[in-house]
Amino acid sequence: MYDLIILGGGPAGYNAAERAGHAGLKTLVIEERALGGVCLNEGCIPTKTLLYSAKIYDYAKHSADYGVKFGSAEIDHAFVVERKNKVVKQLVSGVGAKLKKAKVDVVNATATIKERNSEGFVVSAADKEYVGRQLLICTGSSPALPPIDGLADSLKSGFALTNREVLDLKELPKEIVIVGGGVIGLEMASYFNSTGAKVYVVEMLDHIAGATDREISSMLEKEYRARGVEFILGARVTSIKDKAVTYEKDGKSVKLPCDYALVSIGRRARTAGLGCENIGLKLERGAIVTNEYGKTNVPGVWAAGDVNGKSMLAHTAYREGEVCINNILGKKDRINYNSIPSVIYTNPEVASVGETAESAKEKGLDVTVETVTLKYSGRYIAENEHGNGVVKLIIDKKHRNILGLHMIGTYASEIIYGAAMMVETEMRVTDIQKLVFPHPTVCEVIREAMFM
Amino acid sequence: MYDLIILGGGPAGYNAAERAGHAGLKTLVIEERALGGVCLNEGCIPTKTLLYSAKIYDYAKHSADYGVKFGSAEIDHAFVVERKNKVVKQLVSGVGAKLKKAKVDVVNATATIKERNSEGFVVSAADKEYVGRQLLICTGSSPALPPIDGLADSLKSGFALTNREVLDLKELPKEIVIVGGGVIGLEMASYFNSTGAKVYVVEMLDHIAGATDREISSMLEKEYRARGVEFILGARVTSIKDKAVTYEKDGKSVKLPCDYALVSIGRRARTAGLGCENIGLKLERGAIVTNEYGKTNVPGVWAAGDVNGKSMLAHTAYREGEVCINNILGKKDRINYNSIPSVIYTNPEVASVGETAESAKEKGLDVTVETVTLKYSGRYIAENEHGNGVVKLIIDKKHRNILGLHMIGTYASEIIYGAAMMVETEMRVTDIQKLVFPHPTVCEVIREAMFM
Repeated sequence: MYDLIILGGGPAGYNAAERAGHAGLKTLVIEERALGGVCLNEGCIPTKTLLYSAKIYDYAKHSADYGVKFGSAEIDHAFVVERKNKVVKQLVSGVGAKLKKAKVDVVNATATIKERNSEGFVVSAADKEYVGRQLLICTGSSPALPPIDGLADSLKSGFALTNREVLDLKELPKEIVIVGGGVIGLEMASYFNSTGAKVYVVEMLDHIAGATDREISSMLEKEYRARGVEFILGARVTSIKDKAVTYEKDGKSVKLPCDYALVSIGRRARTAGLGCENIGLKLERGAIVTNEYGKTNVPGVWAAGDVNGKSMLAHTAYREGEVCINNILGKKDRINYNSIPSVIYTNPEVASVGETAESAKEKGLDVTVETVTLKYSGRYIAENEHGNGVVKLIIDKKHRNILGLHMIGTYASEIIYGAAMMVETEMRVTDIQKLVFPHPTVCEVIREAMFM
Repeated sequence: MYDLIILGGGPAGYNAAERAGHAGLKTLVIEERALGGVCLNEGCIPTKTLLYSAKIYDYAKHSADYGVKFGSAEIDHAFVVERKNKVVKQLVSGVGAKLKKAKVDVVNATATIKERNSEGFVVSAADKEYVGRQLLICTGSSPALPPIDGLADSLKSGFALTNREVLDLKELPKEIVIVGGGVIGLEMASYFNSTGAKVYVVEMLDHIAGATDREISSMLEKEYRARGVEFILGARVTSIKDKAVTYEKDGKSVKLPCDYALVSIGRRARTAGLGCENIGLKLERGAIVTNEYGKTNVPGVWAAGDVNGKSMLAHTAYREGEVCINNILGKKDRINYNSIPSVIYTNPEVASVGETAESAKEKGLDVTVETVTLKYSGRYIAENEHGNGVVKLIIDKKHRNILGLHMIGTYASEIIYGAAMMVETEMRVTDIQKLVFPHPTVCEVIREAMFM
């Protein structure tokens, strides 16, 4: 008998389990694959390991601009993948150690929700049954795989890849078509472009990077076009087979031969086979419906992370899991989705928080939009020959508080959390003017922008 | 006749001039050397340019750890210095353009304060006299050069260097002795260590990095000792001559032969020859005495930046200059010295804000001290083989707000501004727990530390 059973040991689940365990709840995590979930095993962390090696390789290619000369440079992809596996292994075992320390039980099996009885919720996993007074569902998401002609067979044959398989390619592709120009697609495009492959990105929308501020995503697109990535926008993929991806654009059908096709067109909440129907859980388009407290329609059942279909980011999942645990513990807590940062780990990096110029307009907000070059930063100039990054601010016209901040350029990933604090705490321009930012840094352009 | 005459066109002066100009004050800046001051011409920016080249060179040396193989690598110091000059020139001309845009007059000459008359303050520069209703003194600082045997002659002969000359060395030294293990000494030690020189750092105190949290400065020392830098602590330099630096330690005298000696033992406010006595300005140990509003003892005379002898940091100077301008404009403003971040741009970087374990103890503050490894960050592990960075928190025991935060590790320089916001706005542990930090980043260890 557990106080809490958590289904899924990814960011939402393992973090919630740790908090719950330390708070004294008798907690069980059931995970069918490895602890750490997609994020740690086949998402955030492995891609960042690859991208860091690519970044070093990029440094080598441009080092002469900074007075450092190399004889020759090459990237050893097999080594990079092996190192990635080592990093993942270290972190997965770290998660295991944390859960052990928090006295959380872990079962490695597929879980099914059986029923609700007078004691709580009955979950079966590997022929055993477990009962929890409360239930937290964190089963995450899977790649969306629409019924494109040939896709199913191509996934089987290894020609088509998802985020999982692409990270374990033994050899570097010479030509790769990436279907979907969102975060995953762009990060892998960046890696393969750095390693020397010919990369095509085929995207259904007329722009890349999803909901990213349009001015910033255009800059990113321009940057990668200059490096040789081909973006085919407003195109619909019609088949993935016979070592080629075929798409339709403006009424014409074009066939792109390639070594591999990466399918990264989005992710879907993982609820199939979970037994949601056995306790009457409400779903919408396959995702579990939750409110800002993490509650589902069934009292005692909570959901956090990608499975609620809301934000689909690991750090949102952490916080959603914590919100659930706090509410379970009787400490009322809610999540503010407006101040969640997001990052694309391309080179240059893109980072965002809050309203974009587009979303502000859609909502009818009265805002001032300010785009400021990072060339105001001495450090940026010192470290970026030919760089043209910017920081873009969305400011409420009446109250002069920061509604959104978007960046393209070095260190954006590590800078954006402070901007998220500004949005979350509704800081005004005059408040930020009074803060002291260290010099010389790239982040100080944010402060400088407050004087424009 | 000017509303405001600003003496000195460094960070305090040029930034204040820009704000004043945009606010409609008829403003004159008098600068005897180049706009941008020490920071831009022979401090922050040039060192960062050098250090970035060194960082790329370091990447090359360790790239095999990340799967990138190089034939051979060498650093072209002459190119690095030339590029540094180009970067500085670009930024200096940027400052000039900003001042022009703000309709600020600039005179390139040495200024002397003559007197106060019924109209205002009379300043002479290059045989002309200028009158300003108010005066803002931003003349900065110079290297402290104590009467060490042989130092004066060695400076003339070019064997001894200050921060100015060291940046323009035509050749890399094989052996260099750095007198003073503060920020400037450590950054240059880092550069010359990366380029392959044998580096000695001789420091009078029993620790490096001045007021930096002692645990963090010890880690930095250990890191650089492992790379071959020799730290000679608790030692007093007795002579700098005949291609050697001689120091006394534990009653023994030791002579270190070397190609160059860099003297970086501190900086002194520049007030000599300025004519402070002509208007009765109060000085203390050569620095102009100011209050938190930037006011001196003479109504209508303000001072900002190193010349007030307080913080000696470019970003403090910016803010102090702005505080003066705001008060001149009748918008009451004051500076909070407790939340000013500082950075040492070694590799790994060190960044700090607020109380250290030591300063908290001295002040009798009741605090909790928490040191957390950066290995909690997946990104840190992905990007740092053999890294052992930490974030260290000083938390008020009663109110649970953040009094200080100290970091050693990658991206520390760009992360610390957010911590400065936490200190400035007196954020509590529970407030930070509710913020969402992007994943995977190094900065998210700050959030994780809130759950320890």
